[in-house]
Parts: sequence; structure tokens; C-alpha cells
Amino acid sequence: MTGVQLLPVTGMPEVRSGDVLAALVAAAAGDEPGLRDGDVVVVTQKVVSKAEGRMVPADPASVRHLVEAEAVRVLRRRGELLITETRHGFVCANAGVDSSNVDRGHAALLPVDPDRSARRIRDGLRARAGVEVGVIVSDTFGRAWRRGVTDVAIGCAGVAAVVDLRGTTDASGRRLEVTEVAVADELAAAAELVMGKASSVPVAIVRGVDRSWLRESSVRAEIVRPAGEDLFR
Amino acid sequence: MTGVQLLPVTGMPEVRSGDVLAALVAAAAGDEPGLRDGDVVVVTQKVVSKAEGRMVPADPASVRHLVEAEAVRVLRRRGELLITETRHGFVCANAGVDSSNVDRGHAALLPVDPDRSARRIRDGLRARAGVEVGVIVSDTFGRAWRRGVTDVAIGCAGVAAVVDLRGTTDASGRRLEVTEVAVADELAAAAELVMGKASSVPVAIVRGVDRSWLRESSVRAEIVRPAGEDLFR
Repeated sequence: MTGVQLLPVTGMPEVRSGDVLAALVAAAAGDEPGLRDGDVVVVTQKVVSKAEGRMVPADPASVRHLVEAEAVRVLRRRGELLITETRHGFVCANAGVDSSNVDRGHAALLPVDPDRSARRIRDGLRARAGVEVGVIVSDTFGRAWRRGVTDVAIGCAGVAAVVDLRGTTDASGRRLEVTEVAVADELAAAAELVMGKASSVPVAIVRGVDRSWLRESSVRAEIVRPAGEDLFR
Repeated sequence: MTGVQLLPVTGMPEVRSGDVLAALVAAAAGDEPGLRDGDVVVVTQKVVSKAEGRMVPADPASVRHLVEAEAVRVLRRRGELLITETRHGFVCANAGVDSSNVDRGHAALLPVDPDRSARRIRDGLRARAGVEVGVIVSDTFGRAWRRGVTDVAIGCAGVAAVVDLRGTTDASGRRLEVTEVAVADELAAAAELVMGKASSVPVAIVRGVDRSWLRESSVRAEIVRPAGEDLFR
């Protein structure tokens, strides 16, 4: 029976600007759950933004200006809620500007380049812990048509964003119609199950994923849908 | 270290119209991974549709008519692809009509009431295996703005569709802004990680979820966003 394990990494300290996340993650993972070759380490955007100095002073009045500065396009407005496109090409509420789980009087902006953030953590874990892992930076987004938020990947390194099953056949020999699975988003969603929104577990390990998924990749290149092929922008 | 396990249920037989899924799942789960109180059993739409007689004769020409009959609204068209709203309120490609992983010359329609399908499996597992589990019926949907498909919940029983964290506070005592997490969709996405599209594993068990999530619920009531509150319909 081959399964996959979702393992919370508890005991992460409060993250501050300039912290080296790979060092904090390696220390917090410790011996249990540890870090093993082939693990996928999912790190929430919040701690990445903190480490990268993306916290900015903000009060309820100025958050709106921050949102407008971070957005390259506003798709919809309803009251305080703006559905925006960010520089990265993400479509999300309020350009990803977030004032929960941050110091009072501050808001967290998205990392400038979340794929690069993931690479930096991956490289750091390789150097410090001697492990070859995939890394996903996750964030919490709403969706069109469905209530509730889920965690998705905003950056990745060393693990596929999308697995292309084109050309493979299903159990009856028929070519598969649905072919490109956004496994990075599924990994981010799975990790959220052991993080919880209020419990301050910003890192989780997904252990036992298909080894063929562990390759160079990028959320920006593989998941962000260019506006030209998007039916809803 | 409390983690969550994703366990594929291998050895499910080919499902036919009239089959009692609870019996097949209980037999396939066997002793390993077995079924335990508090497990969430994720079953793909395809086998639910097969068991419920939702397979219909179809060829490439007639599939289009099926799609139009199953849809209550077409949101977008691009070539062969129709983005549709189904009777259930789901927005998905081609009204959920699927001709992969089914007998040649046939297509699978969505279950008439996937929440009811989930309840039936849950009740059957309680009666046959003496276990109190949650059940999710999952399907594979595309998304606006992001490439790749992910599995989501189209029906559930005995497990929350959405967990409402409103009123809880984050680690710094601030009220959370993002509050309603679609855990049923995250559970469906997590389960897909051990199913694979081409490997014919239509059932997986998620073991170790937060016990407070195991309650009566419904995808239709909690996740389907009414058109009136939807910004993208």
C-alpha cells in the first residue's frame, strides 16, 4: 500500500525580514518529520513575504491604495472586495494584499517572484540539509463559481506545476481527454489540511509523491493562464 | 506529530449499473488500508455515474447534443469546448459529460444528485462495515485563470464542505479575514494525488482529518455559489 503523508512542521518561530527560511524550516522539521529526498515542502506565502521584507505599514484606509498599487487590472468590484490581476498574472482578491496573521498596522504583499522564492528555499535545503526536495509556495485564493477558499501554488521549484498526461491511455486503452493536472495546486490544497488557518503552522511536508513529478518547473510558466487564452478575463 | 494519510484503495472491480458501491468499496479496502471511524472516503464521479446507470450511448457527434441537454446555461464557447452551468449549479466544461475511462461508444453523465450519492455510500458503509466515515464524490474540473485541472467535491456526506472560521482569531489575536475554507475541495484534490488519471484508482481514503469536520453537510448548500452572489456568471 503506497500512500502519501501530509506532515505539519510545527515549531516554526515567528519569521522576520531577512530570515533564511531554509534554515528555519530545516531546524523546525528536525528529526520528526525530518526532510527526506523526494519530499515536497509547502510553505505559506505569509512567511515567505515576511522573510522577504514584503510587510508594509498599513491601516484600513491605506490598504485600498496598496491593493490598487499592486494590481495591474481590476476585473470586478463589490464593496470592499476587488477581484484583481496581479503583476504575476494571478487573479485573486485584493491583489493578494493580506492583513491577517501579520503584525497590527501592517499588511503583507505577495512575494515579487514566488517561483524564485521557492527556488531559494529548495537550494537552501539542499545546501543545509543535503536533501533534494520540491518546494511550493502556497496562498489562499477564492474561486469563481464556488464558495470557500482553497490553498493553491503561487510558486514552485523542483516539483511539477502541471503534469501532462497527454498521449497516455486510460484503463480501457482510450486516449485521455483530460490531460493536464495542476498537481502543484493539489499539493498546496492537501498541505492546507494539516496547517489550518488559525493554528500557525506555515509549513507542511508532503511525503510519498510520484517521483516523476520532481522536476524543474514554474507556476508562472505552467499554471498562470495567459490573458489571451482565458475565457474569463 | 499528527499527520494526514492519503491511501489509495486499489483492487476496485469494474463498476456496472446497479452495483452497490459501498459493498465494493468495503471489499476493496479490506484489511489494508481498511476503513476506520473518522476516515473520509473519496469516490470519483466516474464510478458513481456507472453504478447509478448514468452511462449513455454516445459518439463524437452526439456528445454535443448530450452536453446541451445537460447544461442549463452556456457561459462561454470556444470550438468544441463549452463552459456550462449544470442543473446542480456547477460551472464546468461540457456539463460534466465525459467519455474518457468509460466503455467505447458511451459517455458518463454526472450523478443526478451527488450529495445524495455520497449519503448513500456513507449509509452503506455504516451498515456494512460498521464505520462512521465521511464520503466525498469528486470530479475533475478546470478553473478560470489557471491552467490545469484539479479534483473538486461535487457531493459530500458526513464531512464538512466548508469550514467556517469566522470569529476565530489568528495567532496574534486579530480576527481572521479569510474565513471559509472549502475543505471538501481540498480533500478531493488531496485524494487525487494517489489516484492518478490513468491508473484506475477510483477510491482513496483520507485518514486523520480534524474530527470537527465530520458533520452533516452538502456541496450544493455550502459550495455551489448562487448566481446572484457570483461575479463571474
